[in-house]
Amino acid sequence: MTDPAPLSREQLQARLSVAPFHQWLGLTVEAVDEDSITVAAKWREEFVVNPEGRYTHGGILATLIDVVADYALAARLGRPFPTIDLRVDYHRAALPGDLTVTGKVLKLGPQVSSAEAAIHDSEGRLLASGRGVYLTAAGK
Amino acid sequence: MTDPAPLSREQLQARLSVAPFHQWLGLTVEAVDEDSITVAAKWREEFVVNPEGRYTHGGILATLIDVVADYALAARLGRPFPTIDLRVDYHRAALPGDLTVTGKVLKLGPQVSSAEAAIHDSEGRLLASGRGVYLTAAGK
Amino acid sequence: MTDPAPLSREQLQARLSVAPFHQWLGLTVEAVDEDSITVAAKWREEFVVNPEGRYTHGGILATLIDVVADYALAARLGRPFPTIDLRVDYHRAALPGDLTVTGKVLKLGPQVSSAEAAIHDSEGRLLASGRGVYLTAAGK
Amino acid sequence: MTDPAPLSREQLQARLSVAPFHQWLGLTVEAVDEDSITVAAKWREEFVVNPEGRYTHGGILATLIDVVADYALAARLGRPFPTIDLRVDYHRAALPGDLTVTGKVLKLGPQVSSAEAAIHDSEGRLLASGRGVYLTAAGK
Repeated sequence: MTDPAPLSREQLQARLSVAPFHQWLGLTVEAVDEDSITVAAKWREEFVVNPEGRYTHGGILATLIDVVADYALAARLGRPFPTIDLRVDYHRAALPGDLTVTGKVLKLGPQVSSAEAAIHDSEGRLLASGRGVYLTAAGK
Repeated sequence: MTDPAPLSREQLQARLSVAPFHQWLGLTVEAVDEDSITVAAKWREEFVVNPEGRYTHGGILATLIDVVADYALAARLGRPFPTIDLRVDYHRAALPGDLTVTGKVLKLGPQVSSAEAAIHDSEGRLLASGRGVYLTAAGK
Repeated sequence: MTDPAPLSREQLQARLSVAPFHQWLGLTVEAVDEDSITVAAKWREEFVVNPEGRYTHGGILATLIDVVADYALAARLGRPFPTIDLRVDYHRAALPGDLTVTGKVLKLGPQVSSAEAAIHDSEGRLLASGRGVYLTAAGK
Repeated sequence: MTDPAPLSREQLQARLSVAPFHQWLGLTVEAVDEDSITVAAKWREEFVVNPEGRYTHGGILATLIDVVADYALAARLGRPFPTIDLRVDYHRAALPGDLTVTGKVLKLGPQVSSAEAAIHDSEGRLLASGRGVYLTAAGK
């Protein structure tokens, strides 16, 4: 395992924002502590999958689960890691509006680590949740 | 189950393209037959997660698995369906370049159906693969 | 959704024990409340996958995740439901000894519902955790 | 990655049978080639979850997916590996009768590898299928 090098909210934000796709998603690290991280995503018109229902695409939600689970690890281990696999449960259609995503480490391991994340809308309804497994043995 | 109403390549393309996020992803239905569907995605700079390595974000790959598994069902059942859950395995970093995604139905059921998809790069290397379960009982 | 008909610990135990495989696993419902259920599993020699390391087989752990997630739903909805899909993360090798499994509902829905479960050893170490999606629309 | 040391059907059977749980499941390696492995499981009364419907427990099916995906790797790499995570889709209720499980490698990697498996009944109906990710970097 990497030598734990916890990152501050500002450091996590800086690291997160180097990714063009994260910029496009409008991600802001809102809070971080030893156990969890909270990230906000700014809704944009391109998120829509169904122009009538105006639902956000499941792929956007899957992306948010992946990023925020990974950054729950980053907050503890000093950097994000490659995703080995990702699983997402869709609980409710996501209508237009900003999203709040909370991530939490499930298990740190020397070679692989797992973390989970959940997405809520601005009224606190659970929209999707899931888990990722990350290759924490990946070359530093 | 919906009365099977197989769609042609053109019909699937038209349906796929109504989604703003699918337009952004530059998706083209390349082929469809009874067993499988092939969709191309056009690489764009915003796909990148790591500006040095220039890897495509895992969330983009998860989105492609979800869309193309769903459209493998659409080709058989006449329309796409809400995703219940999605699982993605990442096999190899995706470097800049267009992607080819192939979807296949695993099981059609009266209430839920499952399908899988795999993503290859332009040199035929397997980048990611996965499965989704879809609510085929969803109100038409 | 079934009309909620919460079951008591005794009723859940009775229902659980009709399954020959649950009897073989030595399952006891230890506690149940609105939010969670706790089930104990009695270790037996046949659980072993590796006679040297004496680890419990991952299939046994997967079974426990499935059963206890399903019974977290049963405690709320009055009966267990068919599993649509199951995902299990293995966090640490399970050595001989009784296991404690805690289940929790993630989301109740009219057609499908999801629940999670975690397995700890007698010293409180997390061995495995996971989630299942269940067909709560299944004929009563 | 371990140096590939392909095993014969007899060697795989010998390795498989050292596990008490595999003996209990009555597993027989029926065929193995470069791409896939086929294993038979002998039905037994304890498999049942529902004494009326006489369905086989989903945990038994999950176990078979895990074992046979792992042994698809073993056939290529010389031994089975610890499971990192497992995902199982249930397609149809499994009634009493012997089961045939086919496993296939999805991707070999230096640190983790993935494989899939599918379970059919004696009439060739698909009952369940799924995937596992295995820690192929695990100490040899």
